[in-house]
Amino acid sequence: MVERRSLAALFLALPVAAKAQGADPLPSWREGPRKHALLDFVASVSREGSAGYVPPAERIAVFDNDGTLWVEQPAYPQLIFMLDRIRALAPQNPAWQQDAVFRAAIAGDLRGAMAGGHEGLMRLAGAAMAGNTPEDFQRIAADWLKTARHPRWNRPFTALVYQPMLEVLRFLRSGGFANFIVSGGGVEFVRAFAEDTYGIPQHQVVGSSFALKVTEDAGRLTLLREPRVDFIDDGPGKPIGIARHIGRRPIAAFGNSDGDFEMLRYTTEGAGKRFGMIIRHDDAEREFAYDRESHIGRLARALDAAPAPGWQVVSMREDWARVFA
Amino acid sequence: MVERRSLAALFLALPVAAKAQGADPLPSWREGPRKHALLDFVASVSREGSAGYVPPAERIAVFDNDGTLWVEQPAYPQLIFMLDRIRALAPQNPAWQQDAVFRAAIAGDLRGAMAGGHEGLMRLAGAAMAGNTPEDFQRIAADWLKTARHPRWNRPFTALVYQPMLEVLRFLRSGGFANFIVSGGGVEFVRAFAEDTYGIPQHQVVGSSFALKVTEDAGRLTLLREPRVDFIDDGPGKPIGIARHIGRRPIAAFGNSDGDFEMLRYTTEGAGKRFGMIIRHDDAEREFAYDRESHIGRLARALDAAPAPGWQVVSMREDWARVFA
Repeated sequence: MVERRSLAALFLALPVAAKAQGADPLPSWREGPRKHALLDFVASVSREGSAGYVPPAERIAVFDNDGTLWVEQPAYPQLIFMLDRIRALAPQNPAWQQDAVFRAAIAGDLRGAMAGGHEGLMRLAGAAMAGNTPEDFQRIAADWLKTARHPRWNRPFTALVYQPMLEVLRFLRSGGFANFIVSGGGVEFVRAFAEDTYGIPQHQVVGSSFALKVTEDAGRLTLLREPRVDFIDDGPGKPIGIARHIGRRPIAAFGNSDGDFEMLRYTTEGAGKRFGMIIRHDDAEREFAYDRESHIGRLARALDAAPAPGWQVVSMREDWARVFA
Repeated sequence: MVERRSLAALFLALPVAAKAQGADPLPSWREGPRKHALLDFVASVSREGSAGYVPPAERIAVFDNDGTLWVEQPAYPQLIFMLDRIRALAPQNPAWQQDAVFRAAIAGDLRGAMAGGHEGLMRLAGAAMAGNTPEDFQRIAADWLKTARHPRWNRPFTALVYQPMLEVLRFLRSGGFANFIVSGGGVEFVRAFAEDTYGIPQHQVVGSSFALKVTEDAGRLTLLREPRVDFIDDGPGKPIGIARHIGRRPIAAFGNSDGDFEMLRYTTEGAGKRFGMIIRHDDAEREFAYDRESHIGRLARALDAAPAPGWQVVSMREDWARVFA
């Protein structure tokens, strides 16, 4: 007969034992320096008494979204969403036909829609995505994500998230980290799927935003997203968004393009143990291959800078046994 | 002999049983309608199967800070900090003596320092608090909080937090809520003590902010707080700050002044079960008594509006058995 106390102890010990002898937390990562750098970093900062120990409140990890957590080629999913929405709204906006940029967007001509440069894109963005409440816009984006399909795989965009990165998110969480998305994409667009897809709560998403205005609607206080960009969470905007929103310098950052350069610097230039990782898209067969010359997700400056601070440059082709979830 | 499975079940049930028969979660609240409204609300939204059940991810509570979680009279602690800092920096800034607003601030003349109105205060704020990194400023504020004393009680400001509200924070957390501070105060100032004092992580503090600029300092990427207010998280700014930062309409809001009016409305005008609470300062003996005529923490519009949406108006004098922690 088992004594009560020892049975209880046995019972309590079960999960710990399972974890200690447990499975590889990163099964989609091939053995190699990138995988082991990540395993070592997390072990070091989370093991009490270790030289690199970091208290849980300071274990903050930041992730770019497009190209780091999900596919960003042949165009950012939010850009495809924007064009779909311009097409859907076109019948109610006949005046759009007088504008070359809108005409191209309505025709599904991505190149033509982008020919208006930043100014043209901002007009399209305002027309496609503003003029609603944050809650309504999030619903519109979530509905689109349910039916839209990626042109190459004919699968939902939320199915084209990287399995190895889902494992990183889970592994960091189990190591006491709080994971944040710090995306150049619109904050409500990313919030529309971050919780279900990545297990990241909406308040842990930092992104670009339109200006918000307080209005009244049928006697209720309502927020209106105005067609005027308020904050661009890209490049130097990323450390600014992090400081405002998180209030603490992260100790780990994951990105894939020059838009993440300042975030990687800000993270790894802090004192103590730090971790920077760049996902390099070099797998044309299973995903896409692009870097210095790409119009989307250009990676040049951050790649050249990587060796000095010891940023881990992941080869999708070599380091990932599996790409999609 | 106890069967293994039932012993395990018994063992697992222990904490639940302890909680069910457990102590009053709000011991500093006197029995009465306010306390019971709060107990009922939390029970209803967190009990699975209840009509008012709310999934954990949506259990967001927002708290004003000055006058809701800690003392704000005779002046906001951050205002006292600002004047202390102007005095400390005055010897290095002899030109300040040419300016009446600065001269008053240096002399510790609160009324004179405020005579320059909003514009004068913003100049003082910029001179006293900007020109540093968010990390440095947070450290400066934390250092000040260690030595500064409230003029009436001669105690640190962080000791003048309301015990009943600490109990509310803990009680909500135990009910699966995420608590956020949404303060008109500077975001880094509040972050300097929120974690230690309230158990609220830095990324769950929303506040006012100066503009941030990315610069270089000795080859490291550095953020500089510029003497230019970027966002005022007060009045209509509060729902905007909530939408940007939290991304979800809270289901419970706690405030004490007209600066919280829009936050209370935004919270309680959402669909489903909602909770709004106003702390009314009517206890001159144990704390302060002020409302409609106060220059700080004026409470008029929100008080008049409270009955219709059923906001709970707390009488410090009647409802709180104890005021300070």
